[in-house]
Amino acid sequence: MRLSEGVEWGLHCATLLSFLPDGQALPAARLAEYHGVPGAYLAKNLQALSRAGIVETVPGARGGYRLARSPAAISMLEIVEALDGHESAFRCTEIRRRGPTAVPAREYRAPCAIHAVMDRADAAWRAELAAASIADIVTMLSESAPSGALKKGSKWFQEVLR
Amino acid sequence: MRLSEGVEWGLHCATLLSFLPDGQALPAARLAEYHGVPGAYLAKNLQALSRAGIVETVPGARGGYRLARSPAAISMLEIVEALDGHESAFRCTEIRRRGPTAVPAREYRAPCAIHAVMDRADAAWRAELAAASIADIVTMLSESAPSGALKKGSKWFQEVLR
Repeated sequence: MRLSEGVEWGLHCATLLSFLPDGQALPAARLAEYHGVPGAYLAKNLQALSRAGIVETVPGARGGYRLARSPAAISMLEIVEALDGHESAFRCTEIRRRGPTAVPAREYRAPCAIHAVMDRADAAWRAELAAASIADIVTMLSESAPSGALKKGSKWFQEVLR
Repeated sequence: MRLSEGVEWGLHCATLLSFLPDGQALPAARLAEYHGVPGAYLAKNLQALSRAGIVETVPGARGGYRLARSPAAISMLEIVEALDGHESAFRCTEIRRRGPTAVPAREYRAPCAIHAVMDRADAAWRAELAAASIADIVTMLSESAPSGALKKGSKWFQEVLR
């Protein structure tokens, strides 16, 4: 099982947008340029983030995307679910109801034990992502990103927001 | 992201095999019949479980598959990883190294903060599955499966193992 590339892109875009000065926005083409990813495909991911209320669009010549809420109020889980959906990775097709041991549907009152444990694992995965906000990512980045990259990022911002 | 159907089948097969009396085995065709799934595709999953040392084959007319270890010594994680691999669901393509802020590779000493949190979520998912054994599933099933299905299962075993 793999998450789509769009999940990585969306998480990075939200992180970058959290560095925007108040009142500013970044066009999708700039977000694609910064991340070195194809613009048309990234645009679809940004639209999904917009529908989920994570980013919002600002119209006009200096318009583009910005975060719809403060970085501390946006969890990684929200971004992942906006781009990948809310469904568990485990596909339960209720095979216990097939074959020679099948009984009438009404008798399957409790969920299948295997399904229950898979759901528990899925909940643990989502809980970790719900516990990390974009603000947390920024804090971690400020400690771990190469200083050269942070300087270049700052310079890039000054140029594109002129 | 979705796990393959084979993961559900493999977990159910290992659970069923845990009910086999000592010294007995079930052919792949019987496992397919019991679960109402296509035999040829199930056979591939059983071979993967065999390569992972979770099931083993018994040759001969009354041969087939049986668990290679006690149900308490087989975790759900082992089965999931045998069928779906060990890779995290998150696909990190290191997009931080692309675009205008890229710096030489040697400067990226710490893992990307986004990747680090995604890894933490993956570890939480795997920890839940590692904590549940096939013996645990059997205990849960004995409490929650429809009694009619348990009776039919017992009857089916008596017939096919005659």
